[in-house]
Amino acid sequence: MGQTFIEKLVDRNINKNSSNHTGALSDSHVTAPVKAGDIVTVHVDRVMIHDIFIPFVAEKFEEMGFSKLWDPDKVVLIYDHLVPASQQDDVRHFKTGDAFAEKYGMKNVHRSDGICHQLMTEAGYVKPGNVVFGTDSHTTTYGCVGAFSSGIGYTEMASILGTGTMWIKVPETIKVNIEGELPENVTSKDIILTLIGDLGADGATYRALEFTGSTIENMTVASRMTIANMAIEAGAKCALFTPDEKTAEYCQIELTEQEKSLKGDEDAVYYKTMTYKAEEFVPVMACPSQVDNIKPVEQLAGIKIDQVFIGSCTNGRYEDLEAAARILEGKTISPFVKLIVTPASRKIFIEATRSGIIKTLTAAGAVVTHPGCGLCCGRAGGILSDGEKVVATNNRNFLGRMGTSKVEIYLASPVSAAMAALKGEITLP
Amino acid sequence: MGQTFIEKLVDRNINKNSSNHTGALSDSHVTAPVKAGDIVTVHVDRVMIHDIFIPFVAEKFEEMGFSKLWDPDKVVLIYDHLVPASQQDDVRHFKTGDAFAEKYGMKNVHRSDGICHQLMTEAGYVKPGNVVFGTDSHTTTYGCVGAFSSGIGYTEMASILGTGTMWIKVPETIKVNIEGELPENVTSKDIILTLIGDLGADGATYRALEFTGSTIENMTVASRMTIANMAIEAGAKCALFTPDEKTAEYCQIELTEQEKSLKGDEDAVYYKTMTYKAEEFVPVMACPSQVDNIKPVEQLAGIKIDQVFIGSCTNGRYEDLEAAARILEGKTISPFVKLIVTPASRKIFIEATRSGIIKTLTAAGAVVTHPGCGLCCGRAGGILSDGEKVVATNNRNFLGRMGTSKVEIYLASPVSAAMAALKGEITLP
Repeated sequence: MGQTFIEKLVDRNINKNSSNHTGALSDSHVTAPVKAGDIVTVHVDRVMIHDIFIPFVAEKFEEMGFSKLWDPDKVVLIYDHLVPASQQDDVRHFKTGDAFAEKYGMKNVHRSDGICHQLMTEAGYVKPGNVVFGTDSHTTTYGCVGAFSSGIGYTEMASILGTGTMWIKVPETIKVNIEGELPENVTSKDIILTLIGDLGADGATYRALEFTGSTIENMTVASRMTIANMAIEAGAKCALFTPDEKTAEYCQIELTEQEKSLKGDEDAVYYKTMTYKAEEFVPVMACPSQVDNIKPVEQLAGIKIDQVFIGSCTNGRYEDLEAAARILEGKTISPFVKLIVTPASRKIFIEATRSGIIKTLTAAGAVVTHPGCGLCCGRAGGILSDGEKVVATNNRNFLGRMGTSKVEIYLASPVSAAMAALKGEITLP
Repeated sequence: MGQTFIEKLVDRNINKNSSNHTGALSDSHVTAPVKAGDIVTVHVDRVMIHDIFIPFVAEKFEEMGFSKLWDPDKVVLIYDHLVPASQQDDVRHFKTGDAFAEKYGMKNVHRSDGICHQLMTEAGYVKPGNVVFGTDSHTTTYGCVGAFSSGIGYTEMASILGTGTMWIKVPETIKVNIEGELPENVTSKDIILTLIGDLGADGATYRALEFTGSTIENMTVASRMTIANMAIEAGAKCALFTPDEKTAEYCQIELTEQEKSLKGDEDAVYYKTMTYKAEEFVPVMACPSQVDNIKPVEQLAGIKIDQVFIGSCTNGRYEDLEAAARILEGKTISPFVKLIVTPASRKIFIEATRSGIIKTLTAAGAVVTHPGCGLCCGRAGGILSDGEKVVATNNRNFLGRMGTSKVEIYLASPVSAAMAALKGEITLP
């Protein structure tokens, strides 16, 4: 019997024997090949801790009695939610992180380079086939390069830091097959929003989402990231994209045959398969205040808005800024609309500065902020107030996320967001 | 008997008769020519209100019973301290401002274009010889183009909005003459800090500072702005620079003979005259926590710092960013130092993006924020905590201004600030 992508990945992980590992992990009740539902202990290739959670992780780690990290080079600490500090307590998080990194010999510390989920693949920390955990729900993002990655709490993270391992229940898989070419102005954001609408916010809970089909194959890694990033919004444990030439280029590696074979077998057992024709997707938004309250932009046209946010680990990449710049080039945004653009990383910001995209956006009226989480986590940089409406490219429109609980958040693609900024209302491209 | 710059400017103002004015203002006790100590009523050419004060101004204006602005085109409303909003109440300020502007037919509203004091001259609102008031203490800045400008409270502002006039006591003048060429890496910031140290924080209270000499003549308008901006830190009512070819180019005007003659007469009466040789200036800093606690950088060398801030209405201009970029080009800042760079305006940000300065600073490790007041007013974007030290290019190092009251702020030029960021400690260029 064949295996799904995740079964194959986990199988290889628990049976691998590298110099960095103690060898094959044995779980007496698991017989190869691994299958969905098995509870196994995996070798962890990399972990990510961000500024919000480092104080809790550090405390737990010492409370558990560990005296050293299992492998300091495999631990990445990223300050992103709190950079630059907008509250006095933020500084304590940085100081705790810096002290922890120094005490345990960690070199991989990013103090202002961008959003954790962007940096983990961009800076080369995650490779195809890896098992990665992070203290953030959107850790599912690294599925974009064919890694198994998922969010965990700080207690589990502390335990991984000491042991280098973590137990998982191998998830069942929902296969999502998309064939064909997306219409103009429809992006991977519209795909994932549509999918979340179809599945419901809990429709993929603890399942893997395995993406296949020509649309996926023709998609940039950046666009795949948007999909993987939001998989958690349907409850998914992870999202998986088969490593291909685009992945190899993005990761600056040559793919091995084993990496290329990371895909579901034809006779693998799936929980279900969902099939889409790319041509049938339309621009959609997640309406206030649930991620699965999906409506076509056409139905929402005319709704007046107060602000637009383009950024986040979902849609703060170069191609996202470029898409917005294409729409805003030589134009001026609606006078009362605040347009906030936040590149996902320092690298993206520099590239967009070089190419003139930052100039174009700024000249159109955008407030371009420093790279990082920015407004997405609602701490500073564009807080909204009662009765205001915002079109935002990030991943959650929960009550109170970007200001008061009476703010209405519409989640959209950068294309739809830029259009809304231009017109001052939701509008079709 | 001759007149000082300010006496001449006020004289012309109260006797001018343009279509926008009701004609000469008569104050029975004043006999021409105007002299220091006279209390006169002046025609106001322009006023500036910023986001912090607009709710108070709006309330006072209506409380006073006014039903229309004396001249909507002469009123400029600028959102800068609170952009983008970092607290929920900030939005109320914008909404109050927008409603006020709409109700009274104001067109000059800047919602995210940069710092008020930068925009007032950059956007052409202030010309040589103008009388300008603003609801911010650093309104003295516009003396850089030979205008009389000063900060007032919201009650006075409401009264000007209704009447177009304001009373002033014509200030005595301290003449500051500087001749010669500044040493390398010594800037106009070092001049004004040195002067404040010599005068004391109250040494020029309610006096005009009139700047003359070859050093001043050879100085860019941007550098003069730095000096005019901080004049208030010695208590000065205004700072004055004679309009010249540099002023004309900056303001994009042809100077009239009358404008060119805005300077102190040889036989004018001064409160005192201070004379400096440019060659004798050295890089200095205002040490914690008084603006007049001035020490040479040489004496401070070796003090470890946590953060550097380059920006503000004092030093967030193109030449300031360029000076920092020259030092940081191809280098990387000290790993634990946070370097925050905030261009003073959208225009400056765009120019610095085009020329590669933003790229250079970002590549060196800077967090480049959106244009505005940024960290200077301590609301967000780099808040510091107990025991931290910051080198900053802004104008006030008062306790608690950039975080807790146990933060130590050293005010410096962009050159000294960039050097500190590079080395992680205060150091001579």
